[in-house]
Amino acid sequence: MPTLYYSPHTRSSRVIAQLMLIGKLDQVEVVTVDVVRHDGSGRHDPSNPHPEGKVPYLVTDDGTGIRESAAIMMYLDELFGQPLSPAIGAPGRGAYLSWMAYSGGVLEPVLVAAFAGLDHPAIIETFRGMGELSAVLEQGAQKGPFLLGAELSVADILLASPFQWAPHLLPDSPAIKAWVDRVDSRLDGAAIAAYEASAMAQLTAQETA
Amino acid sequence: MPTLYYSPHTRSSRVIAQLMLIGKLDQVEVVTVDVVRHDGSGRHDPSNPHPEGKVPYLVTDDGTGIRESAAIMMYLDELFGQPLSPAIGAPGRGAYLSWMAYSGGVLEPVLVAAFAGLDHPAIIETFRGMGELSAVLEQGAQKGPFLLGAELSVADILLASPFQWAPHLLPDSPAIKAWVDRVDSRLDGAAIAAYEASAMAQLTAQETA
Repeated sequence: MPTLYYSPHTRSSRVIAQLMLIGKLDQVEVVTVDVVRHDGSGRHDPSNPHPEGKVPYLVTDDGTGIRESAAIMMYLDELFGQPLSPAIGAPGRGAYLSWMAYSGGVLEPVLVAAFAGLDHPAIIETFRGMGELSAVLEQGAQKGPFLLGAELSVADILLASPFQWAPHLLPDSPAIKAWVDRVDSRLDGAAIAAYEASAMAQLTAQETA
Repeated sequence: MPTLYYSPHTRSSRVIAQLMLIGKLDQVEVVTVDVVRHDGSGRHDPSNPHPEGKVPYLVTDDGTGIRESAAIMMYLDELFGQPLSPAIGAPGRGAYLSWMAYSGGVLEPVLVAAFAGLDHPAIIETFRGMGELSAVLEQGAQKGPFLLGAELSVADILLASPFQWAPHLLPDSPAIKAWVDRVDSRLDGAAIAAYEASAMAQLTAQETA
């Protein structure tokens, strides 16, 4: 059974959402760890094998460590028979790979820069800015209902997730907002919230122990 | 036949290197386009369908546009029967996905920040810095000879490529340098250089026409 290193209310929460949606949360061992948070709270948890103490991190049955949300979510979807992604050679495969790489390679750096108020020529030249991000997401959302068309995929869960945590970064686009809402409506928000609250209580109990 | 939008001496060069290595360059239509370069030369080429005028960009037979080097290289390897990547479920698959996501999600932002002399808490907090990058690459290179073990993969071509263009960013690590050299020695550097020179001459001729 693979082991997922997770911390509540982090980038690892979307992996929990994915596993809940496909009904496989009980087939992954989830280890809740502490992480250093934006406000400086938390710590680099020694029980987390991620080289930089981050989450999510997945360790497979043969001991391979997998980092980066996109890789972990692709791997888990493959492990469970690709319920939420196109098979190799199937229609939508190219779009799926493109969106998955776009998430870590463009969306994250652009959102991090916007969040930090960081406006630097090297960032703009390499990753562009919120305007371009908005245009790309809008085009994807308009094709809809989901990024690959009719079916929700891992790409939707991954790319919509930052806007669930930082709604103030959501581009002012009715099409994008409607797409995020469609993704949200497919996830069991109440179950995810309960899971996160329980994990947070467990962490807090450990810290005060 | 898929169409690859390419410009010499850019991130798209590694896709040419990949196609040459697997002997499939003649099964992709390569369109050479101009791009805006670091020194301000070049232009957003109207014949390039990439939403932001960047390269590489791949358009598949069904008209799907694929962006980001990692996605394009994965897609092309899959299209040609995965000569340079592990099949789904095969040993090394998790490590492959992890390295491919690490490239765009961490290595690129860290190198861009280092190249630009950009030292900002939001960048460090999210992506870490050259020290962490060096540690991760060193661990991968030491397992060797290649990132997935005995066989060269798409991940090696992708992750070694920045250091071929910007050798001053290569971490001061004998293990990493030896790995980059091993990857280089598997690629046909002379053929790639000739291809790039020919494409550059074509671009220059267009501009002065």
